[in-house]
Amino acid sequence: MAVMQREYGRRTLLREIRKAGRIPRIELSGLTGISRATVTTITAEFLSDGLVEEVSRDEGEPDSRRGRPRVDLKIRGAAHLVVGVKISHHKLSLVLLDFEGEQLATEECDLSRPVSSPEELAAEIRQAVSRLAGHIGREPGDISGIGIGIAGIVEANDGFVHWSPSLSARNVELGGLLTGMLGVPCFIDNDANLVAVAEHTFGLGRDHSDFLVVTIESGVGLGMVIGGALYRGTRGCGAEFGHTKVQLNGALCRCGQRGCLEAYVADYALLREATLVSGQDAHADPAKRVENLLDAARAGDATARSIVDRAGQIFAMGLANLVNIFDPELIILAGEQMQFDHLYSDAVIDTMRKSIVQVDKAPPEVVVHKWGDLMWARGAAAYALDKVSEMALERLDEHAA
Amino acid sequence: MAVMQREYGRRTLLREIRKAGRIPRIELSGLTGISRATVTTITAEFLSDGLVEEVSRDEGEPDSRRGRPRVDLKIRGAAHLVVGVKISHHKLSLVLLDFEGEQLATEECDLSRPVSSPEELAAEIRQAVSRLAGHIGREPGDISGIGIGIAGIVEANDGFVHWSPSLSARNVELGGLLTGMLGVPCFIDNDANLVAVAEHTFGLGRDHSDFLVVTIESGVGLGMVIGGALYRGTRGCGAEFGHTKVQLNGALCRCGQRGCLEAYVADYALLREATLVSGQDAHADPAKRVENLLDAARAGDATARSIVDRAGQIFAMGLANLVNIFDPELIILAGEQMQFDHLYSDAVIDTMRKSIVQVDKAPPEVVVHKWGDLMWARGAAAYALDKVSEMALERLDEHAA
Repeated sequence: MAVMQREYGRRTLLREIRKAGRIPRIELSGLTGISRATVTTITAEFLSDGLVEEVSRDEGEPDSRRGRPRVDLKIRGAAHLVVGVKISHHKLSLVLLDFEGEQLATEECDLSRPVSSPEELAAEIRQAVSRLAGHIGREPGDISGIGIGIAGIVEANDGFVHWSPSLSARNVELGGLLTGMLGVPCFIDNDANLVAVAEHTFGLGRDHSDFLVVTIESGVGLGMVIGGALYRGTRGCGAEFGHTKVQLNGALCRCGQRGCLEAYVADYALLREATLVSGQDAHADPAKRVENLLDAARAGDATARSIVDRAGQIFAMGLANLVNIFDPELIILAGEQMQFDHLYSDAVIDTMRKSIVQVDKAPPEVVVHKWGDLMWARGAAAYALDKVSEMALERLDEHAA
Repeated sequence: MAVMQREYGRRTLLREIRKAGRIPRIELSGLTGISRATVTTITAEFLSDGLVEEVSRDEGEPDSRRGRPRVDLKIRGAAHLVVGVKISHHKLSLVLLDFEGEQLATEECDLSRPVSSPEELAAEIRQAVSRLAGHIGREPGDISGIGIGIAGIVEANDGFVHWSPSLSARNVELGGLLTGMLGVPCFIDNDANLVAVAEHTFGLGRDHSDFLVVTIESGVGLGMVIGGALYRGTRGCGAEFGHTKVQLNGALCRCGQRGCLEAYVADYALLREATLVSGQDAHADPAKRVENLLDAARAGDATARSIVDRAGQIFAMGLANLVNIFDPELIILAGEQMQFDHLYSDAVIDTMRKSIVQVDKAPPEVVVHKWGDLMWARGAAAYALDKVSEMALERLDEHAA
């Protein structure tokens, strides 16, 4: 019991120090219920390991009772460097954070192709990490952990990718491959899960224990925070929203099945019908064609409007199903591209509200949070911070045992 | 911290004693990591409060080392009586358990009408509880807690029923009303949630921490166990599966919305189309008409087959959506009525498997668990056992504080 208590105490105290920013020991004891003596012992371990440091309080408020300056504890930024990587369809976005979460450098670069072999992708990530570290005169070997978000079906615990639109192979031990090639522990998760981690760590989900994050890029993603923790499903295949079925034997999806949500709302789904809209250039590149279609809809073209409206109605129906099943406090619609404004419209959210079970109590709050690829990368870095903290705590547990 | 530890220790130890059936103190310490001294202190409280009792081990295996019989701890059945009530469309089913979970009596009775005012329903429950207690020569006042499962949308923490097909009013403080009328603490929850509790406590979900229970009666219910605990949603409106939408602007549902799963698979949904099947008696009562339709389908009538098959396909699609979102270890299809065999068929489960995201790893296990109304009532009683245990532990916490 004593050992378990100590291990629990270490995790609780490091988490609370991180959450507080700066905090005196005595407050840690009050917050957590852990005795002052134990707080002193554990924080001494943290200080000696360099995970936290002491900082004097503003001299403007001395402790008059004792006549000496009071001291706060804070996470020691220099303790570790972590990197977050977001793999998008066409590019890599990276951020470098210190252990306090301070952003030290960023890097964005185009991928040579949207679908690569695992080895090619790993090589591109290695180069990008190297450039990122170079921005502050460091080496990849100075980094303690790298979090990586990728679209697809990922078993995060094993760094195993069942399938990803970015990879030409299925069943890839991507975590192991990257860890081997970079010489730094690499942690892989589904990209939407890492957006949920980011929202929970430093976004709109900070004060919520049960919320959903829906992401829209070329596919539709879902991250679920339940009881304060990310829920990944038992095979790592959970939170698969884009391939929930919205129509029996419906439209053909890229996944080979019929009736998936994505087969109605993704860009390629819109383009299937766009040929019927007058004045559309069928030879333009897909992104341009989607833009033209949405422009035509905004300009009042009835056919274009019909295509876009149906996508919104189907999206609302999918959201309503999530609300009926989860009854979350909050749904965060996260994305970066103005392109998907039609799915984030008040009309869509209103349709969703009308499609959930009606009770005399307010429906869940829905907020739209637009952010760029660097914020997705920050989610990946937050995951790396968690993992690196846990590794540091496990070393302390072993030393103490 | 000491107080928190003690409260945590009480809950852990009572749960482990219940789970084990009979267990010596020393094993409790090994299982939980709680020190022998603390186990001795806390179990002494339990013994003095009458929650647990000591029993000698079988004399066939004496403790040769010490030469005296070893002693196990077990839950003391006589400590409390609890009741579980299942409110169905036409009847009440009740079980009376002792604190060990031993079934002491049962009671089933028809409801005077399927939809009642809260006061009428409460009066019928009161009479039934009184008869139930009478079977073993006891009074309702001897009962420590009553768990009640009802279809509809229930906020379990407050005993508040947003809506139920069994009640003529919305927004009913049914828990408070029943507690007042019966003079015994009454705990209300959605009936499918209580089936999930029953499966978790003494059914097929005993060894699982993440599983779903889908129930079929006149409606379709869902109970979700996530991380070892029932997930109810943040407004008590979660796990609403029957009204997830399976088609945009689809068939009209009893709830007033369109395209709900229930509007395709419930008995009334089947009957909407049954008039087109030859030889069907449109004047028979609904249950008889459903039976005739299913008979015709089994006999090979193509129209009847088409109606039943579509219900199965839509049900499979709904199940696949749950799997895509949750990726559970296990799905339990629970129900009592042979009437719904067509939804539990291998063909339906096979269609579900083909409609989930495909990875090279086995899909979740699906098991069919047929049980009667008394098992639903046992789920309600298991909930009452939880609640009564918590009340007893809170009294101990207060005494110690």
